[in-house]
Amino acid sequence: MLIKKEYQSQPQYENCTQMIKVPFIEYQTLAVDTKNLRLISRLQAMIVWRDPELGWNTSIYEYNEVVLPVDKVWTPEIHVTNGIMTTMKHGSRDLLVTSNGTVMHSVIINAEVNCEVNLFNYPFAADECPVAIQTWTHDGCGTELEFGELKMVDGTHGDWQTDSVALQKKRDDRNYIMVGLSIKFTNPFITLMLPSILIILADAVSFSLPLGGGERNSFKVTLVLSFTMFLIILNDQLPGDSQCSPIIRIHFCICLVLLVLSMLVSLVLTRVAKDGLNFCCCSKMPSPKKAGNKEDKEDEEAKPDISVVQLNGPEEDRQMLRKVVKFLEAFDTKEQESDKNQKLADTMDKIFFWIYFISATLYFCAMIYVMVRRTCSVNHFDFWY
Amino acid sequence: MLIKKEYQSQPQYENCTQMIKVPFIEYQTLAVDTKNLRLISRLQAMIVWRDPELGWNTSIYEYNEVVLPVDKVWTPEIHVTNGIMTTMKHGSRDLLVTSNGTVMHSVIINAEVNCEVNLFNYPFAADECPVAIQTWTHDGCGTELEFGELKMVDGTHGDWQTDSVALQKKRDDRNYIMVGLSIKFTNPFITLMLPSILIILADAVSFSLPLGGGERNSFKVTLVLSFTMFLIILNDQLPGDSQCSPIIRIHFCICLVLLVLSMLVSLVLTRVAKDGLNFCCCSKMPSPKKAGNKEDKEDEEAKPDISVVQLNGPEEDRQMLRKVVKFLEAFDTKEQESDKNQKLADTMDKIFFWIYFISATLYFCAMIYVMVRRTCSVNHFDFWY
Amino acid sequence: MLIKKEYQSQPQYENCTQMIKVPFIEYQTLAVDTKNLRLISRLQAMIVWRDPELGWNTSIYEYNEVVLPVDKVWTPEIHVTNGIMTTMKHGSRDLLVTSNGTVMHSVIINAEVNCEVNLFNYPFAADECPVAIQTWTHDGCGTELEFGELKMVDGTHGDWQTDSVALQKKRDDRNYIMVGLSIKFTNPFITLMLPSILIILADAVSFSLPLGGGERNSFKVTLVLSFTMFLIILNDQLPGDSQCSPIIRIHFCICLVLLVLSMLVSLVLTRVAKDGLNFCCCSKMPSPKKAGNKEDKEDEEAKPDISVVQLNGPEEDRQMLRKVVKFLEAFDTKEQESDKNQKLADTMDKIFFWIYFISATLYFCAMIYVMVRRTCSVNHFDFWY
Amino acid sequence: MLIKKEYQSQPQYENCTQMIKVPFIEYQTLAVDTKNLRLISRLQAMIVWRDPELGWNTSIYEYNEVVLPVDKVWTPEIHVTNGIMTTMKHGSRDLLVTSNGTVMHSVIINAEVNCEVNLFNYPFAADECPVAIQTWTHDGCGTELEFGELKMVDGTHGDWQTDSVALQKKRDDRNYIMVGLSIKFTNPFITLMLPSILIILADAVSFSLPLGGGERNSFKVTLVLSFTMFLIILNDQLPGDSQCSPIIRIHFCICLVLLVLSMLVSLVLTRVAKDGLNFCCCSKMPSPKKAGNKEDKEDEEAKPDISVVQLNGPEEDRQMLRKVVKFLEAFDTKEQESDKNQKLADTMDKIFFWIYFISATLYFCAMIYVMVRRTCSVNHFDFWY
Amino acid sequence: MLIKKEYQSQPQYENCTQMIKVPFIEYQTLAVDTKNLRLISRLQAMIVWRDPELGWNTSIYEYNEVVLPVDKVWTPEIHVTNGIMTTMKHGSRDLLVTSNGTVMHSVIINAEVNCEVNLFNYPFAADECPVAIQTWTHDGCGTELEFGELKMVDGTHGDWQTDSVALQKKRDDRNYIMVGLSIKFTNPFITLMLPSILIILADAVSFSLPLGGGERNSFKVTLVLSFTMFLIILNDQLPGDSQCSPIIRIHFCICLVLLVLSMLVSLVLTRVAKDGLNFCCCSKMPSPKKAGNKEDKEDEEAKPDISVVQLNGPEEDRQMLRKVVKFLEAFDTKEQESDKNQKLADTMDKIFFWIYFISATLYFCAMIYVMVRRTCSVNHFDFWY
Repeated sequence: MLIKKEYQSQPQYENCTQMIKVPFIEYQTLAVDTKNLRLISRLQAMIVWRDPELGWNTSIYEYNEVVLPVDKVWTPEIHVTNGIMTTMKHGSRDLLVTSNGTVMHSVIINAEVNCEVNLFNYPFAADECPVAIQTWTHDGCGTELEFGELKMVDGTHGDWQTDSVALQKKRDDRNYIMVGLSIKFTNPFITLMLPSILIILADAVSFSLPLGGGERNSFKVTLVLSFTMFLIILNDQLPGDSQCSPIIRIHFCICLVLLVLSMLVSLVLTRVAKDGLNFCCCSKMPSPKKAGNKEDKEDEEAKPDISVVQLNGPEEDRQMLRKVVKFLEAFDTKEQESDKNQKLADTMDKIFFWIYFISATLYFCAMIYVMVRRTCSVNHFDFWY
Repeated sequence: MLIKKEYQSQPQYENCTQMIKVPFIEYQTLAVDTKNLRLISRLQAMIVWRDPELGWNTSIYEYNEVVLPVDKVWTPEIHVTNGIMTTMKHGSRDLLVTSNGTVMHSVIINAEVNCEVNLFNYPFAADECPVAIQTWTHDGCGTELEFGELKMVDGTHGDWQTDSVALQKKRDDRNYIMVGLSIKFTNPFITLMLPSILIILADAVSFSLPLGGGERNSFKVTLVLSFTMFLIILNDQLPGDSQCSPIIRIHFCICLVLLVLSMLVSLVLTRVAKDGLNFCCCSKMPSPKKAGNKEDKEDEEAKPDISVVQLNGPEEDRQMLRKVVKFLEAFDTKEQESDKNQKLADTMDKIFFWIYFISATLYFCAMIYVMVRRTCSVNHFDFWY
Repeated sequence: MLIKKEYQSQPQYENCTQMIKVPFIEYQTLAVDTKNLRLISRLQAMIVWRDPELGWNTSIYEYNEVVLPVDKVWTPEIHVTNGIMTTMKHGSRDLLVTSNGTVMHSVIINAEVNCEVNLFNYPFAADECPVAIQTWTHDGCGTELEFGELKMVDGTHGDWQTDSVALQKKRDDRNYIMVGLSIKFTNPFITLMLPSILIILADAVSFSLPLGGGERNSFKVTLVLSFTMFLIILNDQLPGDSQCSPIIRIHFCICLVLLVLSMLVSLVLTRVAKDGLNFCCCSKMPSPKKAGNKEDKEDEEAKPDISVVQLNGPEEDRQMLRKVVKFLEAFDTKEQESDKNQKLADTMDKIFFWIYFISATLYFCAMIYVMVRRTCSVNHFDFWY
Repeated sequence: MLIKKEYQSQPQYENCTQMIKVPFIEYQTLAVDTKNLRLISRLQAMIVWRDPELGWNTSIYEYNEVVLPVDKVWTPEIHVTNGIMTTMKHGSRDLLVTSNGTVMHSVIINAEVNCEVNLFNYPFAADECPVAIQTWTHDGCGTELEFGELKMVDGTHGDWQTDSVALQKKRDDRNYIMVGLSIKFTNPFITLMLPSILIILADAVSFSLPLGGGERNSFKVTLVLSFTMFLIILNDQLPGDSQCSPIIRIHFCICLVLLVLSMLVSLVLTRVAKDGLNFCCCSKMPSPKKAGNKEDKEDEEAKPDISVVQLNGPEEDRQMLRKVVKFLEAFDTKEQESDKNQKLADTMDKIFFWIYFISATLYFCAMIYVMVRRTCSVNHFDFWY
Repeated sequence: MLIKKEYQSQPQYENCTQMIKVPFIEYQTLAVDTKNLRLISRLQAMIVWRDPELGWNTSIYEYNEVVLPVDKVWTPEIHVTNGIMTTMKHGSRDLLVTSNGTVMHSVIINAEVNCEVNLFNYPFAADECPVAIQTWTHDGCGTELEFGELKMVDGTHGDWQTDSVALQKKRDDRNYIMVGLSIKFTNPFITLMLPSILIILADAVSFSLPLGGGERNSFKVTLVLSFTMFLIILNDQLPGDSQCSPIIRIHFCICLVLLVLSMLVSLVLTRVAKDGLNFCCCSKMPSPKKAGNKEDKEDEEAKPDISVVQLNGPEEDRQMLRKVVKFLEAFDTKEQESDKNQKLADTMDKIFFWIYFISATLYFCAMIYVMVRRTCSVNHFDFWY
């Protein structure tokens, strides 16, 4: 290699605008940050341009092509306009120059693009994100891009699936790659939706547990607190807020309120089953009655003691038998009263269950309808005002 | 392009101060670190200045504009004064120079600003943060900034919403961008406030559970321990300490103490319901009484054994019947005593419930008042003494 | 050292393609990112090439070898074609040049390779990943590699074991190192499989708990919620999705559904054991019957009251005794009815248990068969179209 | 600006030691890593020195000051001697030179200092950390520092509060900034101390729960396991080990052992309450006795069967009544025996409670005394031997 | 400083090998990554070498020493051979040259060394790691190291304690620093060993809980599930796999199996205590018997109804009394049968307890023996084949 071009590392133009051809782009989605709504992608572009000063006369230097180190010649720069962090690296440290000054090079661009993915219907979300590709231009001076082929690599990786990529234009100098993304719903469905549905289901079925034995309350409190913990842990997995906030967050919130409500009703009904309805409204009244009862009982207790001493004929037998009967009757009465309370509580429980069941069913239908039908559209091009 | 300016990569001044025009700034909040109280923002500024040495005579070199690589000319530097980490990157590798020496360039500044956001009323916090923008000046030598338009991009991203941005001045050379931030309260409300309110509510309603059956205690201990775990997990989400420490931390602390208190009272009342009040004050006295009881019973046991042997007439029938009655009476007495204890415990429980309920209600009102009304002001300009 | 070669830091070619010998490569797997399906590896390669311009006449300069700083001569670049992040660093800052122009150097390459490891049969997964090694070539110009020995270092480190490495070729210029990886199954087995198996086992055995006492339901809800939490925590450890999604995720999902199902059945059977089958279908009918019962009882209650007043002969004794007997009979009847319900529930429970047991066993067999037998093949060479 | 100093980017000395003035330092604590015992701080220093070669004759070049790019002149380097990672960045890309050769510049130093903060009395810890500031000196050649003012910025940020900063000297060339740090105790107190105290308190009060019903054991096991989980989660927040290991770790360990001990005692006493003391010591003896009992009962069962057949006069009545009485007596006896066991267990429970209570109280007093009084001193200057 | 050496930034040799003296090395362990088995260390080395070309005649230039910027002269490079990531930074930007060409400099090396620490007896592990220090040599050309003093700084920091450091040699050119490390066992003991021991202990003592009341099963399931969670959380803290896999992982696995086994046995025995042994083997047989019983009972029920109508003399009394007795006898019989089952279950429980207790004790002894005695040796020098 005889001719060493001097340090002509600056660009040169005839008409202050140079055409850069990009015959081939390879697009790869590295990751989608659902939390911060960012699309991390990697572009590998082949670029071709003409730098007349780098040409030579093949009669003087007989080779047709020459390899030059990349840091000795000027190379165009490709920007990702809506990228927060963009790094362009040279694909290789050498580039190829032909005798007529055509330079061939390849660059690798890692871009973190701010893309407000529409996450409204979250575990089933799908949206398109533009990756705007531009070069530096100012006042008519600069470079222009001319795109060729676009190829997608490895779209099935990670939580999001890259469905399609397409080169599109907004204006003559506003090229972008439209990346069609859709979430893989199995994973969030298993960890987010399935447990929530199962917990709500278990809560509804737990109405079949008897009110009295304390079983139902401990069952429900376990459900509620698990759901709380679940919500806190899940919050790390839930996607971040944006214009189209995912409706699943509100859904979880409502589920939690439903669970707590059903638990509180169950707590109150447990009391109703034990003390009847009077425990709240007339908590003052029963006390004298009870006192009276007690006095009665004391009378009863007083009497037998005397009678035991007084009578010792067949009358005594009768008295004693009568006491046995009285005891059993008192037991029976108490049981009947508690039975009444129990029945009252059962009825209220049944009524509440149907209210709960119907409203939960209606809510679920509405939620599914909203999730499936309503779409929330985001303007992805707000970086180009 | 014929003329290559020599390596004149140094700045040159007539009066030791140069004016840098910033006709356009694009502001974007990347993130707000609520834990460390930092604002991570990105500024894209267009800068224009005059470098007479870079000008040329258009008669000699007929083009009006020339593109130069950025590392061959001097470029001014823009600092974020209150930034902990500031990186200024060139927006492009080339810049435009007109024949009269006017240079047009664009820079990207990523700044992590130390901003003590006022988080006193945490889930509803809103504050303003200054991002001070200055250039290098020393003793009258240096550069001065002259700002033009300021535009905000994508303020609805992430946990914090950027409400407004405005260019303001403290002194002639102290420019700053005032960034109005407000937290999106749905997320912390759902994970922080809602569960805490529901747990306290469940604790209050759990007083309706019967004291005796052991249900209430296990219910309350579950609540308390869940809240403890909840507090530990939440601590990662709670914002960091600063001058205006978020009041929500104290709120959680008081809630925990309330829960534990109500649990301890419930534990003690369970004992009261079983043994009455004497278990604590006169734990020595009942023991001889019990012993006496036991002797009595032994007597009773002794007697019948004999009587069974001795009598075998109608007397025996009566004796036996008497014994049945005695058994039932003993059962009745025991029940009545336990009933008395139960009633005592119930009364105390009711009294405590009302005390708890009233104090909790008062506390919640006070807390809401403090949260809504009291504001805590932070001086954001302490970096300029 | 007399001769200082001038800045000949550019490569020079006769036939536009230069042969680079790689006599020795040391391969080391640093980590396998099971979540993002990436293979992070480190290559230490010795490279030898001829740069005629760096040679010298030993008659003029008598030394045979010369040490040159690496940044003063041109060095070839080795790429990892399927690497997402590749950094090539010089092994040393100096390199050795012999008088005939042979240059000897060593480089260290850290590459993060995108490798869709087949994780279908996850805790027992094993696959091969290619690490494609190429140099820059374009249109016949560039460099070519000629490999020598390949050595593996430290393959037993970390979660994955490197079983084998081998140099292979797809085409003349497509060299790659085939890295055989196999997961160390002890760790995921202990944390993923073992607890899930034990929980399912405990769930099956928990059918031996009596239906009535409330024990079984609380036992099962604890199991279910633990499994839910378990699933959420485990999700961080489960490998990421790809073409061959790990079947263990579906397995966990089915296990969860099985557990919930068995819990719900247990809840419903508890109700059956208490109220019999009529609680659901004929919930209206029993109420009049009960009312009738109540009236009967009220009659009974009414009668004795009168009888106590009326009779005071031996008839009274008999009446009273009759009442005692009636009470006991009523108690007996109630017990028998509850016994009937209990027996019905027990039978249904037994039937369900056998269904559950058989289907769980069948499922486990099928799952093990699929895990062991079915293999899912991934094309690792999709980066070379 | 006419004169461009040639590339005189090397330092020059007359007496091989140059004085660097640091008229102003701004100190800021960015973070304190309690886990790894590191202090991350940021220093912004203004430095002034004389470089005679950079001076000029004002008669030739009439300006008094000149601005030079920082990479064209030599600048001194400031080291943080005990820093693990230190990066010194130029505060600006230009510096000011006056005609007599005085150079004014500002540098920003980010230092991660290894500081074994004394964490013995952890949540109330306070200590001082030196940040050693030196320049390069070797054998009398090098630079010397002369400090001026020191100012602290923003000390109330984060988990640690910077109380004071002061410039101090160990030797003539050993300058350091003494940084007084104190931990903000609210946060660790709420998440570490408060729950542990409340759990221990709840454990002590849980002795008021009745032994028999199974309540106490489930209560205590919940407490213990919560504490275990708590300990595991907390371990991430607990500060790291060093010479003065935080005593809070031992405290938690003892608390855990106390809790487990009280739980185990409660488990054993539950058995005592049921079976008395003989279940352990004489587990062989009762078996024949039971067998004997059984035979007796069989006898009893045998007799009535016969008697029912044999007698059908008034004797039969008596026999039957006798049987009723026997049944009730057997019931009574059983109850009395269980009462005896119960009382025994209650007494032991009471004794253990007082032992537990007193030892726990004593332990807490001792722990508080040690925490408050004992101090553990760390030599922070071991990097200067 | 008059003479500026020209750009002689290349090394020069007479015999192609140069001796580099390292009179002083300061070693510091920054961290030990127990998960990935890496040792992160920091070396601060003073290096001295002779570069004749940098010498000068003191008669011409009268100073004895000269300070040169480090990037203008050649400096040797020190490698850490077994380092995965090694960065060598200059300790200062200037170095000292004496007139005879001796150059004095200091460098800082941060190395991440791959060291398969022997973690077989994990919480009590101690091992030695070599940090191989070499310079670049190739075919006899290059540099050689000659070491002086080695000093350790701050060995008590972090989870691992650096016990000793020593300079050793494998071959003439294979120097390494042998770093003796031992783990600080308090932390892993408290979070790993202590809870596991306490849980196993609690499980053993929980055999004292009565079988019947449902207490023991819920106690044991809580223990098992806590242990499961515990295992999952701990897995993050457990050291990574390598040649000498830590035996503690197998230990935890066995503990979990033991716990589950004891829980399952307890579940089954609960059933035995209720239904006796026939529930499994002859589940078909009892059903006709029960049916027979029922018929019998129906007969009995039928008879009295008639008798009540028929008889109304003293016979009736007798009949009624007989029924009371029958009821009590039936109750008694049922109780005796359940007592028999209970006793059977108790016996089996006791037998299993002793089996469990003995095997657990034996296992623990064996485990402690293996942990203390068996050592697993790792060849740390496999990077030097």
